[in-house]
Amino acid sequence: MKLTRFGTPGSEKPAVVTGAGTFDVSAFGEDFGERFFETAGLERLAGWWEQNKSSCPAVPADARIGSPIQRPSKIVCIGLNYADHAKETNAAIPKEPIVFFKSTSSLVGPNDALVIPKGSEKTDWEVELAVVIGKKASYVNEENAMDYVAGYCLHNDYSERAFQLERGGQWVKGKSNDTFAPLGPWLVTKDEIKDVNNLRLWLTLNGKTMQDGTTANLIFKIPFLVAYLSQFMTLLPGDVISTGTPAGVGLGMNPNVYIKAGDVIELGIDGLGTSKQVAEAYQ
Amino acid sequence: MKLTRFGTPGSEKPAVVTGAGTFDVSAFGEDFGERFFETAGLERLAGWWEQNKSSCPAVPADARIGSPIQRPSKIVCIGLNYADHAKETNAAIPKEPIVFFKSTSSLVGPNDALVIPKGSEKTDWEVELAVVIGKKASYVNEENAMDYVAGYCLHNDYSERAFQLERGGQWVKGKSNDTFAPLGPWLVTKDEIKDVNNLRLWLTLNGKTMQDGTTANLIFKIPFLVAYLSQFMTLLPGDVISTGTPAGVGLGMNPNVYIKAGDVIELGIDGLGTSKQVAEAYQ
Repeated sequence: MKLTRFGTPGSEKPAVVTGAGTFDVSAFGEDFGERFFETAGLERLAGWWEQNKSSCPAVPADARIGSPIQRPSKIVCIGLNYADHAKETNAAIPKEPIVFFKSTSSLVGPNDALVIPKGSEKTDWEVELAVVIGKKASYVNEENAMDYVAGYCLHNDYSERAFQLERGGQWVKGKSNDTFAPLGPWLVTKDEIKDVNNLRLWLTLNGKTMQDGTTANLIFKIPFLVAYLSQFMTLLPGDVISTGTPAGVGLGMNPNVYIKAGDVIELGIDGLGTSKQVAEAYQ
Repeated sequence: MKLTRFGTPGSEKPAVVTGAGTFDVSAFGEDFGERFFETAGLERLAGWWEQNKSSCPAVPADARIGSPIQRPSKIVCIGLNYADHAKETNAAIPKEPIVFFKSTSSLVGPNDALVIPKGSEKTDWEVELAVVIGKKASYVNEENAMDYVAGYCLHNDYSERAFQLERGGQWVKGKSNDTFAPLGPWLVTKDEIKDVNNLRLWLTLNGKTMQDGTTANLIFKIPFLVAYLSQFMTLLPGDVISTGTPAGVGLGMNPNVYIKAGDVIELGIDGLGTSKQVAEAYQ
C-alpha cells in the first residue's frame, strides 16, 4: 500500500495512492500518526480500503502533498552510512553507526519550497531512504527488527554545513531549520519493496545529476540500524530513521557547491517516488 | 502558578499546586501540551482557576507525579554551559552554545525510577534548570526572547558516558534511553521566579552532595539561548531547553563515580522543587 497526505500545512488529510490515482481516505477517520501505527492501522486501513475504495473521492491533481506521516516523536539520522560519501567528506568509515537527530519541526511536504535559513551560505542536499517505524521498539534483535518497520519514504536531509560543522559541537544545529526535511511523496509499506537493499537513489540540481547511488552500498543495513538504535532509545510508532546519503553532496565537490535561491532540487528512489523543491531565501 | 500532572504514565491528569496542596484541574478540559501553550493556556487557566478553585478536588498525597508537561516536540540541551563543569570534564569553555537533542521518549515523572540501560557501566547525573517554551519562536531577538518563555522546571539530564563519548560521533546516543529525563515536580511560570540567574541547584547521591551550584554561573543565559536556538530551528510551544549542568558529575570525579542499582539520586533548584530517583537495573 502507498499512503500519502494532502491539503494545507497542519491540516493534511490522509490518502491512499494506487495505479488509478490518489484517493481521500478521511472517511477512515484516522490520520497517519503514532496512534495509527501502534494500533495496527496499516492492517485496519487495508481492510477498510477493500470495503470502501469505490466511495473514496479522488484527490485533485493540483492538491498540495504533505508529509505522508504526521510529525513523529523523532527523526533519527544516520551519518556517513555510504563509503563513497564518507570519502568525499574526508571522514573515516564509521565502526558503528553515527547517530544524530533532526528537529521534527523541519518536516514538510515533498514538493514544498526549501527555505534557505537567514545567514546561510552552505545549504546542501542529501537524498536518503527513510524508514518509518510501525511498532514500539526497545532492545530489539537484528533477526526480528523488520517486524518493527512499517515502510519507507524518500527524504531529503537538508543540511547547513557551516551550522553543522563550524559552529561548535554537535551536528543538530545544521539539520533542523524549517523545511529541512521534505518527506515523501509516499509511505510505501515494506511488502511493496522487493529488495530494499537494491534501490537506486538519485538527486539533481537544476537538472544536473549530483547524486546517483544504490542502497546496495549502505554500510549498516536497516535491520541492524533498527536493532542498534533500540539499544539507545525507544523507537515509537511513526518515528523516522533516515539511513544516510551516498556521494555527491555539495560539501564533497571541489570547489563546494551550495544551494542558492531559485535552484531546483529533484530526487527519487526506485519505488518510493520523486520529489522536487525550489529554493527560496528566508523572507 | 505551579502546574503539575499526576496519575498513571501516559494517562496523567493536569493539576495546580498551591500552598494548600495539589488540585486536580481536569475540569478545565485541557492537558499541558503544545496546544495548551500556543492558545494562551496559562492565562486562560489562571482565569478559570480563580472561578473554579473551590470545586477542584485535592490530589491524593500518594499519587504518582508525572512530567508537568506532555511530551514536547523536542528536548534541546545545552552542553558545557557552566565553566566549572567544562573544566572538570577537560573540555574547553565553548565560544557559542553546544546544542544536542535528547529523545522525547526519555521523559518521565520526577520521582519515577531511573532504569540503568542494558550494558551500561557509566550512567551519570546532571541537575539542570529547564526552560519551557510558551510561544512559537523563530528568529527571535535576545531582547524579547523572554516573551517566548512559559516557565521553568527541574530536570535531571541523565547521561550514559560510554554511549555518549565512546561509541562514535554524536552525544545523542548517551542521552536518550527511557527514564533519562525526569522532569518536574512542577512547571513554575516565569512570573514566580524573581531572578532566574540566582538560583541554587544541587544533587545528592545516596545523601552525599555531588553538585552544588548556582545559575549565576551560566555561561550563556536564557534569553541568549532562546534567541540563539531560534536561528537554527523553530521552537514550538511546550518545547524544553535544558540549560546545562554545574560541576560535580560522576564523569568529573577521580576516580569516576557512576550509578549502580539501588542508588538514590535527589536534586533540587530554589523555587522549582525537588525530585528523587531510585536506580534499578533493566529487567
